[in-house]
Amino acid sequence: MIIDRLIERINALQNPTALGLDTDPSYLLETPKQGGEGEAVLAFNKALMDALVDIVPAIKVQVAYYEAMGLPGMAAFEETLAYGKKLGYIVIADCKRNDIGPTAKAYAKAYFANTFPADFLTVNGYLGTDGIAPFLEYAPQHGIFALVKTSNPSSGELQDMRFEDGRTLYEAMADRVSEWGIPYIGRHGYSAVGAVVGATYPEQGAALRKRMPETFFLVPGYGAQGATGASLAGTMDENGGGIIVNASRSLLLAYRKPEYAGCNFAEAACREAIIMRDDLRTHMRGRRTRA
Amino acid sequence: MIIDRLIERINALQNPTALGLDTDPSYLLETPKQGGEGEAVLAFNKALMDALVDIVPAIKVQVAYYEAMGLPGMAAFEETLAYGKKLGYIVIADCKRNDIGPTAKAYAKAYFANTFPADFLTVNGYLGTDGIAPFLEYAPQHGIFALVKTSNPSSGELQDMRFEDGRTLYEAMADRVSEWGIPYIGRHGYSAVGAVVGATYPEQGAALRKRMPETFFLVPGYGAQGATGASLAGTMDENGGGIIVNASRSLLLAYRKPEYAGCNFAEAACREAIIMRDDLRTHMRGRRTRA
Repeated sequence: MIIDRLIERINALQNPTALGLDTDPSYLLETPKQGGEGEAVLAFNKALMDALVDIVPAIKVQVAYYEAMGLPGMAAFEETLAYGKKLGYIVIADCKRNDIGPTAKAYAKAYFANTFPADFLTVNGYLGTDGIAPFLEYAPQHGIFALVKTSNPSSGELQDMRFEDGRTLYEAMADRVSEWGIPYIGRHGYSAVGAVVGATYPEQGAALRKRMPETFFLVPGYGAQGATGASLAGTMDENGGGIIVNASRSLLLAYRKPEYAGCNFAEAACREAIIMRDDLRTHMRGRRTRA
Repeated sequence: MIIDRLIERINALQNPTALGLDTDPSYLLETPKQGGEGEAVLAFNKALMDALVDIVPAIKVQVAYYEAMGLPGMAAFEETLAYGKKLGYIVIADCKRNDIGPTAKAYAKAYFANTFPADFLTVNGYLGTDGIAPFLEYAPQHGIFALVKTSNPSSGELQDMRFEDGRTLYEAMADRVSEWGIPYIGRHGYSAVGAVVGATYPEQGAALRKRMPETFFLVPGYGAQGATGASLAGTMDENGGGIIVNASRSLLLAYRKPEYAGCNFAEAACREAIIMRDDLRTHMRGRRTRA
């Protein structure tokens, strides 16, 4: 089961970090030549994956940056996923796909039948169960993370609105996600149907942790978006587990920080990833001591 | 303004139909060879676009079917959009993209800056305003259709839930979409920020028509999903306008109907598109007579 493999890899490395390969060509050291963005991004991604493989258990690849480069970008997307898999990373394709059943079936085929080889895919559940079910045909060998409470400033506009039954929209979505996940719970007590819960809303994250004890969280928002290990402690379970925390710009652009002057980008990302890991570890241990 | 061009093309052809190029390789007459799906689908799409250009004003291309074919599929997607533009179709990329602001910016670049050349893109507004704003930087030369009430059987699970303020989720989304659209209203009274409203829920469609008088509707669900012209009448405005109705499988697979035996697939689609157009025209005229 893919969720067990993710948890075991996090445990082995004692690090719940995902390297967010949201590689905009402007992040590279040199602006690539016209038409050469895809290859330049792929080379950058590979160097990072090579450097971090003994530190970080997973990669999350944001497809938007690759779509923006057109076909060479999509080739780099595919090869980034494949290279990550080859190195043993758990591979999360961050695509937030959503559609009616027959179309969701085509998306599931795209990501879970080796076209764009992902272990997990992020999805948006606005369409309800029949837009999610086609992905679950590939569970538990493949999993999903469904948006619940997103990390962006305006996520509350709709997600925090309260229904007549007392639940907010994100709580109602959380309950759906929990339900979808029941048949796919692995040996560590977590389901292959996970949730996206933004690190930037720590109170909601802590409440959701209690509300959905069998749902693993993909937590974006660490670093560039402002969240820290301390703000994530409540989102962890009583063993310091239950989450994978994504960091993109803070790792990809670490080489621009004054303290890494003289490091190449992969070394800088490595050193920054170790600081992040140790920050998260402190709070993982803190949870265990309290529990 | 792109919304004006869409409306003028609908008026010129007296047909509010979008040809839905959701071309699964299994829809083709002959199963393409391994690796040849992309080219075979593109050839099928081009033949349909050539045949329907004087009948149908727009194409809607569902990216999922192309992603499922991998890179050759994405090449076919790009070339389908480009060929549609060249022939003068209004081109709707049906991708239901959604993400935080910086990522939405990359998606907007992908579809509105000529990488995958679309006039309109479908989006999902679950993340609120800052996930939508980057697309609007390209308005009114480009537009969006945001999901409001989707056509699938389980769309009501979340979308029909009622908030404390008395609105359902889809009504609250509708109000956001109307607001987003205010700065982009064209000379025919409609905004470049449109809404996706499923044809399969005619009562909700009619209520939304009244609720959002300046919002153009992309209406999926005609044909294979069960909707007819009669069920759409209430979703039209008092002039029989305000909607573009997508049909995919009913046109792509028309050649399999017994009445078109002996026709090639493009002829069959043509004849089916004319029947659909005439069905929609009848109800457009009916609206005008009543108004």
